[in-house]
Amino acid sequence: MSALETPALIVGAGPVGLFQVFQLGLLGIPCHVVDALPHAGGQCAELYPGKPIYDIPGVPATTGRGLVESLVEQIKPFTTAGTAQLHWGQLVSTVARQDDGRFRVGTDTGLVFTTQTLIIAAGAGAFVPRKLRVDGLEALEGKQVFYPDSDDIVAYAEQRGIRLGGQNILIQGDDDRALGWALDLTRHLATAHADAATLRPASVTLLHRRDAFSAVPALVARIQQCRDDGRLRFIAGQITRADTDCAEVNSAGRLHAVQLAKQDGTEESLPVDVVLASLGVSPKLGPIADWGLDLLRKQIPVDTEKFQTLEPGIFAIGDINTYPGKKKLIVCGFHECVLAAFGVAEIVFPGKPQLLQYTTTSTRLHALLGVTH
Amino acid sequence: MSALETPALIVGAGPVGLFQVFQLGLLGIPCHVVDALPHAGGQCAELYPGKPIYDIPGVPATTGRGLVESLVEQIKPFTTAGTAQLHWGQLVSTVARQDDGRFRVGTDTGLVFTTQTLIIAAGAGAFVPRKLRVDGLEALEGKQVFYPDSDDIVAYAEQRGIRLGGQNILIQGDDDRALGWALDLTRHLATAHADAATLRPASVTLLHRRDAFSAVPALVARIQQCRDDGRLRFIAGQITRADTDCAEVNSAGRLHAVQLAKQDGTEESLPVDVVLASLGVSPKLGPIADWGLDLLRKQIPVDTEKFQTLEPGIFAIGDINTYPGKKKLIVCGFHECVLAAFGVAEIVFPGKPQLLQYTTTSTRLHALLGVTH
Repeated sequence: MSALETPALIVGAGPVGLFQVFQLGLLGIPCHVVDALPHAGGQCAELYPGKPIYDIPGVPATTGRGLVESLVEQIKPFTTAGTAQLHWGQLVSTVARQDDGRFRVGTDTGLVFTTQTLIIAAGAGAFVPRKLRVDGLEALEGKQVFYPDSDDIVAYAEQRGIRLGGQNILIQGDDDRALGWALDLTRHLATAHADAATLRPASVTLLHRRDAFSAVPALVARIQQCRDDGRLRFIAGQITRADTDCAEVNSAGRLHAVQLAKQDGTEESLPVDVVLASLGVSPKLGPIADWGLDLLRKQIPVDTEKFQTLEPGIFAIGDINTYPGKKKLIVCGFHECVLAAFGVAEIVFPGKPQLLQYTTTSTRLHALLGVTH
Repeated sequence: MSALETPALIVGAGPVGLFQVFQLGLLGIPCHVVDALPHAGGQCAELYPGKPIYDIPGVPATTGRGLVESLVEQIKPFTTAGTAQLHWGQLVSTVARQDDGRFRVGTDTGLVFTTQTLIIAAGAGAFVPRKLRVDGLEALEGKQVFYPDSDDIVAYAEQRGIRLGGQNILIQGDDDRALGWALDLTRHLATAHADAATLRPASVTLLHRRDAFSAVPALVARIQQCRDDGRLRFIAGQITRADTDCAEVNSAGRLHAVQLAKQDGTEESLPVDVVLASLGVSPKLGPIADWGLDLLRKQIPVDTEKFQTLEPGIFAIGDINTYPGKKKLIVCGFHECVLAAFGVAEIVFPGKPQLLQYTTTSTRLHALLGVTH
């Protein structure tokens, strides 16, 4: 496929990545943004969407969600105009400098960018689903083992061509998402009419290491009802082994059962055709660690003039960078966006120093922002 | 008088100075703040209170006034608790390092501070009233020539013991404030009863270089009415000389008249006892220029680790500092506050490195901010 050409590619759409879009936009620099999550916000959205934040200057109190919404609103002039394009569910997998000095950046879904500058705003790394650590299950991912990034399990299964009807389904997890899947799938167990047959599993089992859940009480109560009336089996325990019809290691074969170590000390072999796991997300630096940026304890060293890395054209802002005095605070990342934007401008507009303009007075900025005075 | 002792003194209560209060507060460091203006906000309040600002991160649109109000709200936990004390109408006039390493800082009204650290957040300098540049008038300031920082001229005159009754009063200026004074004083001309006699001037004259005003139309219309009915005289022109009863230069004597060069090309000698001028404010670096901080084109060089100047213990943040990459933006000043706060903490809590805590999770910060979760 042909590469998307851009002056600037931002990796990470947390608060700092979003504000980088804004600062580039003020300098008239179009950009693309990729993020591993299916939505904006990064840590703010994943780790503390509803929790309070008191130290954003000029915002006495907000939440992770509130801050992200404001920033998404703030960059609308650029996302609406199409000068900033955001791509969700994209994990950067390859970065290479081309002969012409630009970077060729590929993602795990096959997107390819050719960019003059790369701005890493990846926080603690990409938020990727936590995986089951059981020998043999890794090779089954995408075949019989899934980590769905959606609450709507039926739609997810349809999109991926995952057969649910007639299958023994094991759901592992204790959060809203896992319990929601269990409720949706057991509902189809109870539906009598023929159309539902394609969705009616042979069995639904919910697995968590103990009989206590982090999901909201209302969901837990409905799960208990399904357990009480026998539609849903709950097991407190963990998977210890995957049993496939192929004995060779690393040659997956077909999963037909998992071996469970149960909380009560017993073991059980459970017939399983499909595993759906929701184990939360964890940040992973991923391939950034291999980009040759001389990482310092998983941080990327930058200068404080442009927040540029040792690799000219690659900038790093927010929690992922380090420099003398560095504090991992959102407010510091915002400042880094400003100076990085001017650093990017030097590369994108060589020999044309960019004058600092003020949104209060500049008619050029007013036009860019779509405001009139 | 005895000096006020404090770990930190902030010079300037613009947006950056205000956020410095917040960042020091989070580290448990009490502070005092001085500003030359009678209120918070600095340039935001003086130059663009009603104008829009679009580049505060997470605040898609606000105004100079709106931003300042939010910041004043944000530091309330500290101003309410008294750990941050703000002093208005204070121009720093002297800074000297004591033998014990602390700084002794004096203001033009006689306040004296002894502080471990000094944080200069003075923007383009202190906003001080523009003065009349006429030989002989300077020596009369505070005696017969005044630059009132108040809209209520009667209250101002009472506080300062300025006699208005029976005096020939000359008001120079064209803004809301100057025209408001003129209206208030002419009102007393029209009042018949005896009590008003102490406030009844002999005459009120409004002087501006041309017959056009920057004040709001409603005020201009009321001024025109006073001119029409003969209570107020307006002269388009400028003062060229002060006539006092003492011929010696620099020995003020008593002002009895000013020589005017009028717009129509003629001259006039106008009897005057009191001059009230409102010529706007202009930023002045003032004594900061003499503090030995190696100023670079009126900017103070700082490091980017703590935003400390060449003088240990003196920090500079916001528009007044300079370093490689510096951009004069409020968002950059906010970042500088954070790192300066940790720099101050190293001096205030020697040998006790301060851990970065998050307002989202830290119960210590929640207690400081007076919020409960």
